[in-house]
Amino acid sequence: MENKIINLGIFGFGCVGQGLYEVLNRTKGINARIKKICIKDPNKPRPIDASYFTTDKNEILNDPTIDVVVELINETDAAFEIVSTALRNGKAVVSASKRMIAENLPALYQLQVENKVPFLYEASSCASIPIIRNLEEYYDNDLLNAVEGICNGSTNYILTKIFEENLSFETALKQAQELGFAETDPTLDIEGYDPKFKIVILLLHAFGTFVKPEEVFNFGIHHLNDFDIQFAKQRNCTIKLIGNCRRQNGHVNAYVLPHLIREHNLLYDVYNEYNGVLLESAFTDKQFFVGKGAGGTATGSAVLSDISALLYNYRYEYKKIKQSNQPAFTNDVQLKIYLRYSNASQVHLTDFYNISEKYESATYSYVVGVINLQKLKEADWLKNKDVNLLVLGEDHAR
Amino acid sequence: MENKIINLGIFGFGCVGQGLYEVLNRTKGINARIKKICIKDPNKPRPIDASYFTTDKNEILNDPTIDVVVELINETDAAFEIVSTALRNGKAVVSASKRMIAENLPALYQLQVENKVPFLYEASSCASIPIIRNLEEYYDNDLLNAVEGICNGSTNYILTKIFEENLSFETALKQAQELGFAETDPTLDIEGYDPKFKIVILLLHAFGTFVKPEEVFNFGIHHLNDFDIQFAKQRNCTIKLIGNCRRQNGHVNAYVLPHLIREHNLLYDVYNEYNGVLLESAFTDKQFFVGKGAGGTATGSAVLSDISALLYNYRYEYKKIKQSNQPAFTNDVQLKIYLRYSNASQVHLTDFYNISEKYESATYSYVVGVINLQKLKEADWLKNKDVNLLVLGEDHAR
Repeated sequence: MENKIINLGIFGFGCVGQGLYEVLNRTKGINARIKKICIKDPNKPRPIDASYFTTDKNEILNDPTIDVVVELINETDAAFEIVSTALRNGKAVVSASKRMIAENLPALYQLQVENKVPFLYEASSCASIPIIRNLEEYYDNDLLNAVEGICNGSTNYILTKIFEENLSFETALKQAQELGFAETDPTLDIEGYDPKFKIVILLLHAFGTFVKPEEVFNFGIHHLNDFDIQFAKQRNCTIKLIGNCRRQNGHVNAYVLPHLIREHNLLYDVYNEYNGVLLESAFTDKQFFVGKGAGGTATGSAVLSDISALLYNYRYEYKKIKQSNQPAFTNDVQLKIYLRYSNASQVHLTDFYNISEKYESATYSYVVGVINLQKLKEADWLKNKDVNLLVLGEDHAR
Repeated sequence: MENKIINLGIFGFGCVGQGLYEVLNRTKGINARIKKICIKDPNKPRPIDASYFTTDKNEILNDPTIDVVVELINETDAAFEIVSTALRNGKAVVSASKRMIAENLPALYQLQVENKVPFLYEASSCASIPIIRNLEEYYDNDLLNAVEGICNGSTNYILTKIFEENLSFETALKQAQELGFAETDPTLDIEGYDPKFKIVILLLHAFGTFVKPEEVFNFGIHHLNDFDIQFAKQRNCTIKLIGNCRRQNGHVNAYVLPHLIREHNLLYDVYNEYNGVLLESAFTDKQFFVGKGAGGTATGSAVLSDISALLYNYRYEYKKIKQSNQPAFTNDVQLKIYLRYSNASQVHLTDFYNISEKYESATYSYVVGVINLQKLKEADWLKNKDVNLLVLGEDHAR
C-alpha cells in the first residue's frame, strides 16, 4: 500500500474511536483518511460532521474503495462478524477488541492465512505499549522465558489510589469510571477477565501456543479488603494485579492474580492507568516496558500505529506458531500465596502442598503456603467474599 | 533474503562477537551461519575452531557468498572503512559501533540510499533495548517530544554501587571493569562520551535531525565526590547519568549530564548495568523501556535481532528525515543545575541566569540556579576537578 492514501472504514466511535480521530487529525505525514464510520445509534450527538456516519455496516464492508477496516466496538459477536467478513472481503483489519480476539485467535489466524490479508491488534493488549510488535519482531530469536505485567489500566488506577492516597475501593473505582479508565460495568476489569484476554493474546505471540480464555485462571481485586492492604503495607509492599505467562519444564502456564509487590521491584512504580510488562529471556535477562494502558488518545495512537504499519505492508509473522517447539499449556504449577479468610471452614487448607505461616484472629485469619494453580482454578470456595488471595512472587528489583 | 540461509562475515571477536556466537548457537530456527571471522591478532587463543578466522578483511568483503557483514571492532576509522566498503559491495551490514556510527551518520545514510542496502545498528544504542526499531516503527505517527534515559551500563553500574552499597568510585569502577561492563580505558564511559554517541543516533531516529557529536555537550561522573553524594541522599535522591534530547519551541536540544533523580521516578529503579529510556509524546504521554545495557549475550542478542530482521527484508526507513519538519539543533536552552566548587573564583556565577540557593562552607560550596546549556558547553572552568554539576530535572514519577 506504499505511497497511496488509504481509506479507513471505522466501526464504533466511543472513547478509542474519538481518540483515533484526534490522533489522525494532528499527525502530519500519515497517508490515511477516514471515509466512513459505522455507529449503532444514529440519534446520539456526535462531535464531528454527520456525513461521516452510517448505521449500515455494508457501506464499509462492501465498499471497494475502503482499504482498511478499523473495528472498535464493544459487542464481541458483532465484532468478530465484522472482522471476519472484512478479512474475507480482502480488507486489512485493525482491531482493539481484546475479548473478541482472545476468544477467536485460531479462527482469526486461519482467516489471515487463507485470505492473505493482515490483521493487526496492538491496541488490544497494553494500549500504548508496543508489546505485540516487540514480541513478534524482536524476540523471535531470543529464548523467552516469561511475559508478565500489569495490563489493566483501571484496576491499576484503583490500586494506586488505595495505596498512595488511602482512598476506599469504592471511591477509587468511581474516580476511574469518571476518568474513562473503567467501564460502567467494571466486572471484566476488577475480576481480572480483561487482563486475561490480553495474556491469552500475548501468550500466542510469545510462545506460539493457542489457549482458550477459559483455560486460564483469573482472580481480580474484587475481594480485596483493609486486612489485605495492611498485610501488604506491613511488609513494605504494594498490591498489583499481574498477568503472567511463563515457560517451565517444557510447558507454558498462565494466570491473572493479585500479587504482593515489594518496593524497588520494577512493577512497584507503575502507577495509575499505566501498564508495565516485564519480559524474561535467556540472553537479555529482564526487559521492561511501561506506557499508558487506557485512555482515548493513548489507545487511538496504538491503533494509528497499526494503520501506519499497513502502509509499509507490515503483518504479524506468527513465527513461533510455525516453529515446531511450541510448549503445551498447563495449570499444573505451584504458586506461593497468601490466603485470607474469616474462619477455616471457608477454605480447603488441605489443598495446600505446604503451609509456612499461619495467623489466626477473631476477625480474619491467613496462611502463607504453596498450592497448585489447577487446585485454585477449581476452588469454589474462592467465590466467598471473605476469602482473598495474593501471590507472593519473585522479586524483580534488579 | 527470505527462506535462505544467510552467511555472516564477522569483524571482531571480543565480548560482543563471542556473545553473538553463543546466542546464534543456542537459537533454533534462525537461518544464519557464521562463515568467517576477521580478527587482528592471529596468535591470541580463541575459544572456537581456528578455521573460522582470518586476518585478511578481503576474505569477507570480497566473498560473494557472504550476504551480511557484522562489524564489531573497536577502532573507529577501521570500522567505518569496513562498513562503507561492505555497503558499496552490496552487502547488508549490522554494526554495534556507536562512536563510528554517531560520527558518520550522514555518510552512512547516504551509502544506504546510494547502494540500496540495509544497515542496522540496534546494538549500538542501548544494547538489549529495541529503541531504534521502536522509534522507527512505532513513533512515526506520534508527536514525540523527548527521548531521555540511562544509556551507559558501566556508569550506571558504578552509580548503583556507590548509592546502594556505599562503595567508593574507584572500587565500583574496578568491579565494572572486572565484570566486562567497563572498558580498560573508562574515559569514554565516565566522561559521558559513550552515551553522547548513542543520543546522537537516537536523535536522528526520533526527530530526523543530523547532529555532530561535538555539537552535543557531555559531562560525566568523573568529578563526582562525597559532598555531591551526600547532597543527593539528603534530598532522597540518587544520581544517574542521563542522555536527553528534547523538542522545544520548534528546535531540538540534547546533552549528557548527571542528574539528581528522586525516589519513585521511573529512572530511579534502573540499577546496575541496566539501561532505561523514557519517551514523551503528545498522545501516549510517557513510555519507558528498560533492559540490559551491557554484556556479551545481551548485546549479541540485539545484533542477532538485526540479522534476523534482514531475513525479513527489514531496513530503517528514516521516515523523519524524509519529512519536511525536522527541528534544527540548538544548545540555547535553560537548565536548572546544582553547581559545586571549593571557592567561588573557580566558577563563573555571573553565567547564571538566576540563582535560587547558595551554600558556602570551608570545604565545598554550591549554588542551585538556572544556566544556559551553551554557556556550560563553553565553560572551561568545568575542567577543574573541584567543580561538579548535577541537573535538577523534571520528575517522571507518575
